Amino acid sequence: MRLIVPLRGVIQGRGGLLVGSLIPCCLFYFLQLYLKRRRSPPDPPPRTNLFSRGNSIGRVRVSSRAVDVAKPTDSPYYIGLERVKADPYDRMSNRDGIIQLGLAESSLCFDLLQSWMSENLMESMMMQSDEGGFDISSIAMYKPFEGLLELRVAFADFMSRIMGGNVSFDPSNMVITAGGTPAIEVLAFCLADHGNAFLIPSPYYPGFDRDIKFRTGVELIPVHCRSSDNFTVTVSALEQALNQARKRGSRVSGILFSNPSNPVGNILSRETLHDILRFAQEKNIHVISDEIFAGSVYGDKEFVSMAEIAGSGEFDKSRVHIIYGLSKDLSIPGFRAGVIYSFHEDVVSAAKKLMRFSSVPVPVQRILISLLSDTRFIEEYMAAHRQRIREKHIRFVEGLKQLGIPCAESDGGLYCWVDMRSLLTSYSEKGELELFEKLLSVAKINATPGTACYCIEPGWFRCCFTALADEDIPVIMERIRQLAESSRS
Amino acid sequence: MRLIVPLRGVIQGRGGLLVGSLIPCCLFYFLQLYLKRRRSPPDPPPRTNLFSRGNSIGRVRVSSRAVDVAKPTDSPYYIGLERVKADPYDRMSNRDGIIQLGLAESSLCFDLLQSWMSENLMESMMMQSDEGGFDISSIAMYKPFEGLLELRVAFADFMSRIMGGNVSFDPSNMVITAGGTPAIEVLAFCLADHGNAFLIPSPYYPGFDRDIKFRTGVELIPVHCRSSDNFTVTVSALEQALNQARKRGSRVSGILFSNPSNPVGNILSRETLHDILRFAQEKNIHVISDEIFAGSVYGDKEFVSMAEIAGSGEFDKSRVHIIYGLSKDLSIPGFRAGVIYSFHEDVVSAAKKLMRFSSVPVPVQRILISLLSDTRFIEEYMAAHRQRIREKHIRFVEGLKQLGIPCAESDGGLYCWVDMRSLLTSYSEKGELELFEKLLSVAKINATPGTACYCIEPGWFRCCFTALADEDIPVIMERIRQLAESSRS
Repeated sequence: MRLIVPLRGVIQGRGGLLVGSLIPCCLFYFLQLYLKRRRSPPDPPPRTNLFSRGNSIGRVRVSSRAVDVAKPTDSPYYIGLERVKADPYDRMSNRDGIIQLGLAESSLCFDLLQSWMSENLMESMMMQSDEGGFDISSIAMYKPFEGLLELRVAFADFMSRIMGGNVSFDPSNMVITAGGTPAIEVLAFCLADHGNAFLIPSPYYPGFDRDIKFRTGVELIPVHCRSSDNFTVTVSALEQALNQARKRGSRVSGILFSNPSNPVGNILSRETLHDILRFAQEKNIHVISDEIFAGSVYGDKEFVSMAEIAGSGEFDKSRVHIIYGLSKDLSIPGFRAGVIYSFHEDVVSAAKKLMRFSSVPVPVQRILISLLSDTRFIEEYMAAHRQRIREKHIRFVEGLKQLGIPCAESDGGLYCWVDMRSLLTSYSEKGELELFEKLLSVAKINATPGTACYCIEPGWFRCCFTALADEDIPVIMERIRQLAESSRS
Repeated sequence: MRLIVPLRGVIQGRGGLLVGSLIPCCLFYFLQLYLKRRRSPPDPPPRTNLFSRGNSIGRVRVSSRAVDVAKPTDSPYYIGLERVKADPYDRMSNRDGIIQLGLAESSLCFDLLQSWMSENLMESMMMQSDEGGFDISSIAMYKPFEGLLELRVAFADFMSRIMGGNVSFDPSNMVITAGGTPAIEVLAFCLADHGNAFLIPSPYYPGFDRDIKFRTGVELIPVHCRSSDNFTVTVSALEQALNQARKRGSRVSGILFSNPSNPVGNILSRETLHDILRFAQEKNIHVISDEIFAGSVYGDKEFVSMAEIAGSGEFDKSRVHIIYGLSKDLSIPGFRAGVIYSFHEDVVSAAKKLMRFSSVPVPVQRILISLLSDTRFIEEYMAAHRQRIREKHIRFVEGLKQLGIPCAESDGGLYCWVDMRSLLTSYSEKGELELFEKLLSVAKINATPGTACYCIEPGWFRCCFTALADEDIPVIMERIRQLAESSRS
């Protein structure tokens, strides 16, 4: 019998089995360690255009995450916005330019805002000093990054007011952010670790990709909704998506959704909100409700905040987090004013500290305190805002209807979700992107295609209509009519 | 001869050596794999106060990074600021409160700012429409997140002006940020990947820890400077720190420093800047120069921007990045206005996109365009700003000198670096922290101890003096005198 083992002379006697196994294991372990050290930290992806100058040993590298962020986008949402920037339609000076239906902003009540600002701007920004003059220190100096208490009180009151008064907000659960965008990023950072995921009913707002994926490392898992349900999410779809995600090894930390939904514009019913929160509680995950269009509801359905469901006493509300802001309902995106409202004290406390990166300048806070506290103005503004969206919506949807183009049912938002399937040359993502390109370059219209929103049914487009003048609508309809005709011929 | 190996019956013949080693290795490898799967993804740290309610399976977890951020701080810098907030000194209403020497802000030229704002605020914010009225759309709507071109042009001119006109800035290399804080974070994100490090001469500004470590995952490696060099960094110290870091397996991506330095207040000479950039080029790493106090220079030494050295043609300037802002030189931290100036196109392009999280509201941008473009005001302001810091500095340092307390030599900044070694009961970090606590609770003064700035020599404190009224200085000196007396007795 001939037995060959490593270190032949050593392994003898009763310890032979143990030592004969241990020695190769140790050698193997140290080999692994050596290899690991050699390749750690991982090399960033190779860069092109390297050059050297002076005595440099090569061009300096930026981080691989910066390379990712700097890369040109392939999202039709951003491509469309860029194209408009290069050739924007103007009724007076550029009648052949691209008409913007891609950006959810509103100028419907600028007359009201303008007269308020003309009267109150100066006074709201500079508080009176004891001597009666302006007091610069009230706007110039450092203030708490999470927002002045007066502003949080005013915001809480305003949010309760636009949500129909059925829910109240506690200013101590509130953090003021420089727009809705950092509110979303900070919540993602706080609720999920790098590599974890959120479920998100799709079609969804294309900006979430940058908001969440740029820096937090949190994944978004679309939960596909269908036209047959008017794109409303169901618990069974959530359940299925969660199970699939877990099978793939993803750790799902929460559900993120917009209500009123963006891009569809429908409103989640009280029952659906209950179902979602019950589901989240069963699975022990978070719920993030983006309610930035809560005051832009123009249909007959009642808007219900997830904060109201959370406060019903039925649930552990610490898993519920609300995003809000003034970019849509007050039409002042230029003011960069958003809110994180969270029932979880650690989230509030971490978000407050993170606001060093995204705080609202004090002069703007002072304006907002005056604006939001002027309840007479706010009531008048909100009524006009809703009424004017409703009218513009009717006008826009009616125009499309006359072209044989229907829209999904909707009750809120600054947009409608347009069914352009009849204009597709092929019923596929490719066909949809071809139509997007034809809309941009032939009809000179920028509408956001469903594929940018992770919609699985081709042919749907989000069209924002609240920055349009009435006289622009016939221009748009005529452009679409011509496109439809040429593609049918 | 008795040889025992695993799987005795199998290992025979000439392949015995190989198989006899391979089998234990394989078993060991699969054991490792099994253990790794069991513990991955890593569990967040255990939480206290768990509870369940309804049918929840336990309290929902926030991310482990949020738990880290939410944790109470142990930095004396932030502890001091919190203590002042709870009991702030006020000449009229709270004469026994804590006097703030911990925050670098200035009210020295509020009279000038106030009169400018009173005259120009309204006009600067609301541009005239064609019909002659205010045009709300110029402040309310979405604008490029990286800052309006007019603002970048005005900033470039302003920066060149305060830096003595020896260097010019290209607005296309510039990104406007909501304060210096996000400028630092975004640069760290862009220049270093998670786990990489920056060298940073210490003592350094304690806020950098939160700016950089909260979210970017970049490490800061202090390069200790000594009182014998007036705390100025040397290339040999950088070299040594770099070598040590590399030995430990750290990947160093750059050098970060403040010039004028914070907390010491000294200015780096042209030669030192050359040396640092040459060193960075040899090592192929980045240079980040925080020049936020560039216009707050009151000594006789000339301030030189790293941008000037980079532009000399001697170096690959794409590795040079400048941080600037208006919180210190224009005394308007409440306005949250900062700048990233980078010679690397990928950094500029990534930073522009990341400004969705930290953009300056348009109304504030409009004010700043008017303010920075008003060159007559700016010249007058800057001259007064420097003159008044100089005077206050003399008054403050003289007061300390009469108590036998010297300061480091300094030429810029809103603070001085005070040598309180004579007041220590023991020459150690512990002794310094005891003095910090006595200053806070007995003398009722918040000064930032060197240990918060990673200074290795105990007994140094940063004292900010530019928010003090002249009549506060004798109060401070009297409080310190009493403390010194009681600790000597």
